[in-house]
Amino acid sequence: MIKKTYLVSPGPVPIPEDALVEAARPIIHHRTDIFSGIFMEVAEGMKYVFGTKRDVFILASSGTGAMEAAVANLLSPGDEVITINGGKFGERWGEIARAWGLNVHEIVLEWGQPFTGEQLAEELKKYPKAKAVFATLSETSSGSVYDIKSFAQATAKTDAVLVVDAISGLGATPCPMDEWGVDVLVAGSQKALMIPPGLAYIALSEKAWKLTETSTLPKYYFDLKAYKKSLGKKTTPYTPAITLIIQQKKTLEFIKKIGLETLFEHHRILADATRSGVKAIGLELLSKIPGNIATAVKVPEGVDGAALVKTVQKKYGVYIAGGQSHYKGKLFRIAHLGYMGAFDIITALSAVEMALDEQGYKFEMGASVKAAMEVFRREWK
Amino acid sequence: MIKKTYLVSPGPVPIPEDALVEAARPIIHHRTDIFSGIFMEVAEGMKYVFGTKRDVFILASSGTGAMEAAVANLLSPGDEVITINGGKFGERWGEIARAWGLNVHEIVLEWGQPFTGEQLAEELKKYPKAKAVFATLSETSSGSVYDIKSFAQATAKTDAVLVVDAISGLGATPCPMDEWGVDVLVAGSQKALMIPPGLAYIALSEKAWKLTETSTLPKYYFDLKAYKKSLGKKTTPYTPAITLIIQQKKTLEFIKKIGLETLFEHHRILADATRSGVKAIGLELLSKIPGNIATAVKVPEGVDGAALVKTVQKKYGVYIAGGQSHYKGKLFRIAHLGYMGAFDIITALSAVEMALDEQGYKFEMGASVKAAMEVFRREWK
Repeated sequence: MIKKTYLVSPGPVPIPEDALVEAARPIIHHRTDIFSGIFMEVAEGMKYVFGTKRDVFILASSGTGAMEAAVANLLSPGDEVITINGGKFGERWGEIARAWGLNVHEIVLEWGQPFTGEQLAEELKKYPKAKAVFATLSETSSGSVYDIKSFAQATAKTDAVLVVDAISGLGATPCPMDEWGVDVLVAGSQKALMIPPGLAYIALSEKAWKLTETSTLPKYYFDLKAYKKSLGKKTTPYTPAITLIIQQKKTLEFIKKIGLETLFEHHRILADATRSGVKAIGLELLSKIPGNIATAVKVPEGVDGAALVKTVQKKYGVYIAGGQSHYKGKLFRIAHLGYMGAFDIITALSAVEMALDEQGYKFEMGASVKAAMEVFRREWK
Repeated sequence: MIKKTYLVSPGPVPIPEDALVEAARPIIHHRTDIFSGIFMEVAEGMKYVFGTKRDVFILASSGTGAMEAAVANLLSPGDEVITINGGKFGERWGEIARAWGLNVHEIVLEWGQPFTGEQLAEELKKYPKAKAVFATLSETSSGSVYDIKSFAQATAKTDAVLVVDAISGLGATPCPMDEWGVDVLVAGSQKALMIPPGLAYIALSEKAWKLTETSTLPKYYFDLKAYKKSLGKKTTPYTPAITLIIQQKKTLEFIKKIGLETLFEHHRILADATRSGVKAIGLELLSKIPGNIATAVKVPEGVDGAALVKTVQKKYGVYIAGGQSHYKGKLFRIAHLGYMGAFDIITALSAVEMALDEQGYKFEMGASVKAAMEVFRREWK
């Protein structure tokens, strides 16, 4: 058999063809009017995706770079902060904060368990000196989405700012920065923004910007004041990732044309179909608060999870993801993110079914695909 | 919903990514050593696909251009010929032959009905002056593959040459020119050769080449003697389709690496899965001699075939094909051709199922996908 490759992992994601070919065009210089025009279109367009009137800064880095920028620009050595760790990416906030010498109060959650604004309010009472709360919108390691709106309601009543890693969620699930009162929002290019990795985005509220005035942590490449100054000159302080920004312009046009509301619906329907599919063959979700970005599914009893993922990837060419950290071998994850459509979900489900069958798991072959198709039939307008 | 486009039509077909990007490289000049090297690699490589030691000429034209070249190079006004018309492409042989003033004996078959070498032998007895028999390897309009080997056995005993349109079949289903004794074999680039349309290929046996000596039909662009002369100089008489030839080099490497035998198996398995799938939801094939290139399925009673194809294409973005000529609205066709994999078939079947369901056709949702998956599970090594 000819093995074709299908990407259904939570980043990188499939890229719209129009944006793909942009990277093959002759490169242009970045200190030119033409690039400045493109750059500003992206900077302005991102405000729509962020739901903000504040500046959105464009960094040539992974999403983690923008997470680090948030820490380095807002805080000073020994500052107290709260991090919410409900999975691999929530854990990363703690790792960064500790690496930068902060005094970290880490809330460690069971992966996939809910955490509410009221619970956060309790923590804020416990640590009244906390200057910042670091949270995650979409925790792809457990397939969860947290209630960021309620977190913002909790931090709003305190001096702490709410810093949200929305890397995998922004554009796929709602997180309107200004409306909800998020203070720092961080995004990455290779998720719902539908281009390759290499760009990160960050925006700061007035409350967050004030913290930058007192922050004494060292910074140069990620110094957001430099980015603010450069943005006024329609450029970046250091060489921008030119082709990625050009590609981002293309997918932003696509996103604006479709509209965020429709995109959220699209992701919801794909997620519903995925969840219905896996449940129909007797599988369980890890998360009690499943989001619309990626579905984390427990590997059933008697099935070798590592072998399952390997078969789906290597034999069938379908790049689902496995479990991370202590869930390695115990989960598989199907993403419904970026430029994916209904038939990518059907592809993922059928590949998983064939691999489960290969391991002798008992189920009705085709049932997951059938369940997904029923969702599409009902929802596809 | 974001609608992605999937191509499961019998040409053009999906193109391997490595070959796609070749077209985006800076164009090179064709009267250069570097192009001559690429050109000769394609000309030599095509011998492997044709199963011949004869020259394979590369034309900048559609497959139909090479069909016309066969007629114009072999025959003279008023020559008697036999054409086998079992579908839209067999019919085309008759149209071309009549346009060129030949005396055409057309064997008109029901679409999808078999026609054997013995039957052809009978026709040859009836028309002993026939100089050529024009046949079709893979008739995509009806999803049939004819027994070319038996046709060649029939013509071998006569003065007639056997000219075979293998445009959609070559590379997907066996047709070894020298071994079977085919006199003229015609192929096109956009089918199992997996690149965009624009190139046609033609090779002539010794017996066919002799006919070119006496042919008086007018020709210039398609004069194969000019191509033969140029091939000796590692080039073409007129400007070649440079980027297509470069892309063809890339997919020929892919084809040679996989090997024709494996490719034939791949197409057989995809075709088996498609046939099992449609039968599982109560549908019938049109052809009694179904091939492994495209499956033509009868639209069931009570279903509007034109609307069905339109829904699958426009709503679900899955480009299956409809019926042609008098089967317009009465067939849909799923191809399993070129750079397609198992999940392209599953995509096509699930889109067809959803569209059938939309029209109230009664069947067990998911059954076609299940049947296809069972074939893949059994056959996928």
